[in-house]
Amino acid sequence: MTFIKPFMIRLSHCDATGQVFYPNYFHIFNALVEDWFYEAIEIPFHTFLMERNLSLPTVKLETTFNAPSRMGETVNFWLTVTHVGRSSMRFTMGARKDGDDRVRMHRIAVCVSQETHRAVPIPDDVRQKVLEFMRG
Amino acid sequence: MTFIKPFMIRLSHCDATGQVFYPNYFHIFNALVEDWFYEAIEIPFHTFLMERNLSLPTVKLETTFNAPSRMGETVNFWLTVTHVGRSSMRFTMGARKDGDDRVRMHRIAVCVSQETHRAVPIPDDVRQKVLEFMRG
Amino acid sequence: MTFIKPFMIRLSHCDATGQVFYPNYFHIFNALVEDWFYEAIEIPFHTFLMERNLSLPTVKLETTFNAPSRMGETVNFWLTVTHVGRSSMRFTMGARKDGDDRVRMHRIAVCVSQETHRAVPIPDDVRQKVLEFMRG
Amino acid sequence: MTFIKPFMIRLSHCDATGQVFYPNYFHIFNALVEDWFYEAIEIPFHTFLMERNLSLPTVKLETTFNAPSRMGETVNFWLTVTHVGRSSMRFTMGARKDGDDRVRMHRIAVCVSQETHRAVPIPDDVRQKVLEFMRG
Repeated sequence: MTFIKPFMIRLSHCDATGQVFYPNYFHIFNALVEDWFYEAIEIPFHTFLMERNLSLPTVKLETTFNAPSRMGETVNFWLTVTHVGRSSMRFTMGARKDGDDRVRMHRIAVCVSQETHRAVPIPDDVRQKVLEFMRG
Repeated sequence: MTFIKPFMIRLSHCDATGQVFYPNYFHIFNALVEDWFYEAIEIPFHTFLMERNLSLPTVKLETTFNAPSRMGETVNFWLTVTHVGRSSMRFTMGARKDGDDRVRMHRIAVCVSQETHRAVPIPDDVRQKVLEFMRG
Repeated sequence: MTFIKPFMIRLSHCDATGQVFYPNYFHIFNALVEDWFYEAIEIPFHTFLMERNLSLPTVKLETTFNAPSRMGETVNFWLTVTHVGRSSMRFTMGARKDGDDRVRMHRIAVCVSQETHRAVPIPDDVRQKVLEFMRG
Repeated sequence: MTFIKPFMIRLSHCDATGQVFYPNYFHIFNALVEDWFYEAIEIPFHTFLMERNLSLPTVKLETTFNAPSRMGETVNFWLTVTHVGRSSMRFTMGARKDGDDRVRMHRIAVCVSQETHRAVPIPDDVRQKVLEFMRG
């Protein structure tokens, strides 16, 4: 299953060239992951972080930027999960407009305890929800 | 030659886990590239952008995050150029503290005209300076 | 008339204390003004900036922060226009949750030509729309 | 005494108009306050936050923007403390270039416990250092 969400490119995303400043793409992709938590797997991301004391830091990121995005455009950002390991997850994400890939990204993230700062198994309820999303 | 610069990890770089929020690493790496322009190859980046009407957008980025960085740490960010093509450049960059790699990144950037939005040859004076830096 | 829009407080808005880092409030308020342009007065903000070559920089800002906002909260951001001059506009904006003011802000902005960098009259069609909004 | 520090205006500070996007000024002013902690009163800001579990949130902010700043400019940011109360501090800060005020800002901040989320007295060692700075 693919989670898709439109984000409008705002003034604050763009630099002096009038196009998205690439670090700001990662802010949008992070918003996408948050929304996927809330809306797709229905695990509130703030409880995952602030109550369960877990986090999901990025360990590897491969990103290709194919075409720029400009202020005022509404671009579809999408997310799929390609693998769930014991403590890691692989996401493929992208930004697409009118059938063209603007950005494509592979991201490996690891579930980490904020107490020990070490990798821990993805909690069972989260894993179940992610597997359902992958099958859905 | 390697261009090295210390950056202090600030409150504004960190998220609620007290560690650098990964999109903010790219803001620091972008500051590093700007400083490399000004200080290492001595091409003022703002004239490159605003007067010559060029830009250097990222087309490919591969990043590995090995260890987190925390607020108050001063981390060395470094940059090398591994290839200069007709209009593209390859950078390898990283963040290092006490001999440990925190982040490592390969970035391909392309010289683009802000008028045509197409790739253009890297200007000769810039190319010469970059080649000198690579040999230095 | 008051333009109201809910924004979710995201990880990227918060600092190491788990609360909104105050500069990020201004990013949200700026998103609110953009959305007010698109949705309330129906003047696309990107054409105002990029095609008409105008901008609406802030000249004065008074902000009171009454209570913190935390990650995962959805907070209502609201905007009213209290005055339209020849080239200036006054906005009162705020963030409110469960009847409590979190933030309240007075902002004076001026319409500026991006060519001359000087104040210019607010275009008539924009003024008409803003006056309608004020009466509405 | 006045604490002064030059900051270069970077691409990441500017929006599509090529000038500093005003929320980014507050990021620079926040960096200035951090540097003032480390360099002027010699209280490491990250220990203030992360070890002492205090924070210094802004409760009131008045800002006047007199002239824009552009990418590539190095602008002097300055800070004075005008009052220290039991738990509050008043700062006056500004950005200045070639004798002209670009930005001027009054900020009231309050010392807050991150455990109780309530105002607490400014610790004595911090107060002493701030008073020394004010007399200096």
